[in-house]
Amino acid sequence: MKFTIKRSAFLKSLADVQRAISSRTTIPILTGIKIVANEEGLTLTGSDSDISIETFIPTTDEANALTIEKTGSIVLQARFFSEIVKKLPEENMEIEVLDHFQTLITSATASFTINGLDANNYPHLPVIDTNESFTLPVGLFKQVIGQTVIAISTHESRPILTGVNMVIENGKLLAVATDSHRLSQRVIPLETSEEQTSKKYNVIIPGKSLIELARTLDDNSSTIEMMVTENQVLFKTENMFFYSRLLEGYYPDTKRLIPDNSATEIEFNAVSLLGAIERASLLSHEGKNNVVKITINPDIVKISGNSPDVGNVQEDLDYLSVEGEPIELSFNPDYMKDALRTFGQTDIKIKFTSPVRPFILVPSENNQDFIQLITPVRTF
Amino acid sequence: MKFTIKRSAFLKSLADVQRAISSRTTIPILTGIKIVANEEGLTLTGSDSDISIETFIPTTDEANALTIEKTGSIVLQARFFSEIVKKLPEENMEIEVLDHFQTLITSATASFTINGLDANNYPHLPVIDTNESFTLPVGLFKQVIGQTVIAISTHESRPILTGVNMVIENGKLLAVATDSHRLSQRVIPLETSEEQTSKKYNVIIPGKSLIELARTLDDNSSTIEMMVTENQVLFKTENMFFYSRLLEGYYPDTKRLIPDNSATEIEFNAVSLLGAIERASLLSHEGKNNVVKITINPDIVKISGNSPDVGNVQEDLDYLSVEGEPIELSFNPDYMKDALRTFGQTDIKIKFTSPVRPFILVPSENNQDFIQLITPVRTF
Repeated sequence: MKFTIKRSAFLKSLADVQRAISSRTTIPILTGIKIVANEEGLTLTGSDSDISIETFIPTTDEANALTIEKTGSIVLQARFFSEIVKKLPEENMEIEVLDHFQTLITSATASFTINGLDANNYPHLPVIDTNESFTLPVGLFKQVIGQTVIAISTHESRPILTGVNMVIENGKLLAVATDSHRLSQRVIPLETSEEQTSKKYNVIIPGKSLIELARTLDDNSSTIEMMVTENQVLFKTENMFFYSRLLEGYYPDTKRLIPDNSATEIEFNAVSLLGAIERASLLSHEGKNNVVKITINPDIVKISGNSPDVGNVQEDLDYLSVEGEPIELSFNPDYMKDALRTFGQTDIKIKFTSPVRPFILVPSENNQDFIQLITPVRTF
Repeated sequence: MKFTIKRSAFLKSLADVQRAISSRTTIPILTGIKIVANEEGLTLTGSDSDISIETFIPTTDEANALTIEKTGSIVLQARFFSEIVKKLPEENMEIEVLDHFQTLITSATASFTINGLDANNYPHLPVIDTNESFTLPVGLFKQVIGQTVIAISTHESRPILTGVNMVIENGKLLAVATDSHRLSQRVIPLETSEEQTSKKYNVIIPGKSLIELARTLDDNSSTIEMMVTENQVLFKTENMFFYSRLLEGYYPDTKRLIPDNSATEIEFNAVSLLGAIERASLLSHEGKNNVVKITINPDIVKISGNSPDVGNVQEDLDYLSVEGEPIELSFNPDYMKDALRTFGQTDIKIKFTSPVRPFILVPSENNQDFIQLITPVRTF
């Protein structure tokens, strides 16, 4: 294998592939990046066996200045190899595989010879045995990921809750995540074929995979293809394939958790409420029980936090409207902050039913497709 | 105590004072910031007993919007209090000490009540019993600090080497630091009174203190006053007093370490050599012995690094001029990188005497006042 390439183009592809590579893998060859050169271009692959990312750099795109002088393949230690590529002195570089998988990397008068591994020993990527695919708008899908992954569980005690449940049916994609204390749910419309519309697809994608996927998706690409098999999902963009294993098992039925009535409704600007929650949580973080209390009365709405060792805080809140019963309840301010951040600048409604039942946050406009739910903390 | 102040002005002062405060102190009150309000303004103090910083916010400067409504003093937990001030909702804030050292912090509708401590229990600052002071230009003195602290020892086995030795005599300040593997020395002219010129001042200032001092000095102030007593040094700017204890003991005689002749001299641009050393050290960092080799021949100058497990690197160097004997020696590339960074963009000369004797780096212009010295690593 021998090729020359523009370093910046190569680095971008390397960075994407590296997202899949973990230094803590138990399979030594997976600390490496597989590089395959053929007439059409270069294919880079990285994997931690849960996630695999494959990027392609075509010779046809002149911006890459890619010339394949000799086809072939090699596996190079990822972290180390990227460091070398980053620090090379010139804009162009050459890579050549010598005998015994030794690989020569040159740029200007600098040359590195590093030990590579036989690419034939690199694990095969999952086989995606379906032709069915869904087309998702990149921007909207990244939003869905950002809004739901906040609620995945980080504990391995119930592995199924470390994923986001995605259900496609009736021309809609519903994404939901819960760690059993809070829940995030987002619904978006989906263009499906007539055949797909009559079927139901139900998968649980590891939250970690979705977070990495969102990071690799650049906002310039407009759509992404999603293909689902029994135990794998593949996301395809023009020059990248992103594979993730699926979580096996049944996702809990979350519909019944979402209250469908409310006793108190209050409207805030999400950003201004977030500021107040951040202040109130400064003190609760110091104490043993991390809770903030909200009190809604007809004439005043306030939050307060208290940490006996340090002190207490209270703030009258600016709200846009309020209706229903007076209520007072306590919640984990970290859950509230995570939830509020997913709304950006918009105005939101918070709907309470009782001090011991979950309450929900929805956008003031369009309150059907996006819900954040938080379970209060009992303090009595 | 009660006052109102512009939050941004208060935050700046808080941040400076906090540099002296360590969360690992064994004296609980030193995790706090002392605030004293009198008719002239606010004085903030932070200390870890090695370093003490005192800042002053005058009422006369209208930009601070400081109004003292009631004089007094309090000690407030530093990290926590700064977090509160940072997150307050409005540009102005009020602080009021209530009964039992409880302190009320308000801004718009948000109010915090936190537990403070009696300022009378806060340790006294060192007494500086001298009237003699030296005036140092801030920019130049920060340069002196940056150029010398790289060579201080980080091991406590020889505490004296964790400091920078500053010697003032004959109208000059000489700063030198060494960890016994490398040495940095900088000389700058100093305006001294006639009486001072005839005396010699010799102090060892902890490197850590100088690093913090450099961070607090803002480039807008033009000069700083330095006052030296037996075991303390005080640096004064308009609104800040920075105290540091001195290290006690005798600093080794470093003059004899600096070679005064050379067998080989080579000239480089510091930035371009730094790039090459960074590349060469990529491999040496992976291996057991972190060394890079330089080979100087009449026709070629190259560096190389080698790590049997990973591979090797070599690079022909761009140099500006070379004279003297051919030489080959190995060195720790981390020392070389630290040293090269202190030269910025300039051209430098490296002077070698033998493969086993220290070599020095000096600016191509003015090679008397600034020297970096590195001891080679014996590889045979």
